[in-house]
Amino acid sequence: MKILVAGAGAMGCSFAHKLTQIGQEVFLADAWQENIDKINKDGFNIKDLDITYNVKLPITKMEEFNEKVDLVVLFVKSMYLEQTLQKLEKVLTKDTKVLCLLNGLGHIDTLKKYVSEKNIVIGITLITASLKSMAEASLTAYADTVVSSIVDEGIDNAKEVAELIDKTGLPTKYTDNVKEQIWIKACLNGMYNPICAILDMYLGQLRNIENIQNIIENVINEFHIVAQKEGVNFSKDVARQKLYACIKEGYIGEYHYPSMHQDLRTNFRLTEIDYLNGYISRKAKEYGLSTPYCDLITFQIKALESKLKK
Amino acid sequence: MKILVAGAGAMGCSFAHKLTQIGQEVFLADAWQENIDKINKDGFNIKDLDITYNVKLPITKMEEFNEKVDLVVLFVKSMYLEQTLQKLEKVLTKDTKVLCLLNGLGHIDTLKKYVSEKNIVIGITLITASLKSMAEASLTAYADTVVSSIVDEGIDNAKEVAELIDKTGLPTKYTDNVKEQIWIKACLNGMYNPICAILDMYLGQLRNIENIQNIIENVINEFHIVAQKEGVNFSKDVARQKLYACIKEGYIGEYHYPSMHQDLRTNFRLTEIDYLNGYISRKAKEYGLSTPYCDLITFQIKALESKLKK
Repeated sequence: MKILVAGAGAMGCSFAHKLTQIGQEVFLADAWQENIDKINKDGFNIKDLDITYNVKLPITKMEEFNEKVDLVVLFVKSMYLEQTLQKLEKVLTKDTKVLCLLNGLGHIDTLKKYVSEKNIVIGITLITASLKSMAEASLTAYADTVVSSIVDEGIDNAKEVAELIDKTGLPTKYTDNVKEQIWIKACLNGMYNPICAILDMYLGQLRNIENIQNIIENVINEFHIVAQKEGVNFSKDVARQKLYACIKEGYIGEYHYPSMHQDLRTNFRLTEIDYLNGYISRKAKEYGLSTPYCDLITFQIKALESKLKK
Repeated sequence: MKILVAGAGAMGCSFAHKLTQIGQEVFLADAWQENIDKINKDGFNIKDLDITYNVKLPITKMEEFNEKVDLVVLFVKSMYLEQTLQKLEKVLTKDTKVLCLLNGLGHIDTLKKYVSEKNIVIGITLITASLKSMAEASLTAYADTVVSSIVDEGIDNAKEVAELIDKTGLPTKYTDNVKEQIWIKACLNGMYNPICAILDMYLGQLRNIENIQNIIENVINEFHIVAQKEGVNFSKDVARQKLYACIKEGYIGEYHYPSMHQDLRTNFRLTEIDYLNGYISRKAKEYGLSTPYCDLITFQIKALESKLKK
């Protein structure tokens, strides 16, 4: 299979590496010239659990990639999804599948503008990967990935992509309720990503703060009322369970700073807030709902982003 | 008049200095031994607008001051008000007036436990003073102070104290609607103090952040619904006007970090959040009201405070 991985960051490099290992023909595309030059010259290094590999793959700028492929795997930041799809339209045939495992909400609507519904394979992944420096990635945990189709005509495509990823050793399943899972993951990210970024704290530090239960409950509620308006009725119990697990003593990610913290406080980059709490605020306004927690959190992240521009 | 100024910080030193200048017999009391020793040895320096004075006044620990006085001026942090009043009960006669210009809400209830209602002189001051280091204060602006009594029987006492302070050159007036003004100032402090502390930003940096109008409106509303339950109906228009003035281009305090920012980020001290947004949250719960902005803001400040304890 001919596969284009769009976005050569931590997740993109991890997937490209795993797909190469099972003999697929993998290409990389990225937006950042320095990264492209570096990978063209030396390849990228990836520490896959305990073993470090040097992986050499062809890499170009998004707009310079001109071949047709069978599968596009998207690992760009949410805010670049639309412009990436615009640039990659020319690599799609009527059968090219597009796999999107990005965090956050609203991606299906963006995908539908450029990709026919049956070819959209949407999902979430709990795999953790990080970037030490340019072209130096770590794939630290093989957690579950689930994918689905948004129309019945695409189920076979989604199943095919699930099998392919699963074959690489990254456990991947086809699921029927991917939308619920996307929302629950967004809920989790919408609680901890901005709060840890705003307060400059890691997950374990939130455990004993007075009133954390109340904040969790309200964030879940705000995501839930918007989800319902969009036809998704995720279980608040499951969400609650997952959110509490993240701040439990002994949780594996206890000392972990979520990615938004890295964006803002390590890499001085804009965040994906518009696809998490910002999405909730925006949509709530459209639906005439009130979402004060998401409104204030979004305001605060935008304020911190405004400091980056100086 | 024999006057005890309780709390030898920026405001306490400023008032002690001004009262000394008009010939009053002023004593200082403080809780911090190092500060007491320093002032006992060298006095304190105060830059009063442009001129710096060295002021030598007797100073003791709160619990060691044993004379009866005519007036107590309180300039301790809100969270120490109750323990200060306990320690100073013995200096009060049946006629000793107690002046409280502290920021925040809930102080009248605390004062009433130790001071008879007619002797309580309550108010707000817009004077700005800061502490460069221990016993090094600056009195930077002679803005208005207003005071009042909480009972008709105390009006003359409040007027007398207003005249005394006014005589020092700090413009001070008796007012009838001090409660409204206390709430409006609390509203202003409840908006900017924690937000600037949480985001590590000064006032002028908030001006152009997306959605700031919505945050201001909601904070005012939450203070207003609790104020109404407590029998105070302050004008939301006046509050709005004052809150917007703080982030207007060219505002004198544009580059100013509010005191809560200094507490948390410069002095690594606990804040007065329990007497601002924390007060609103607590009281709202009692009254069955919903105050999500104050709840989240209070949570965030408590989280930042928890980091100080490490």
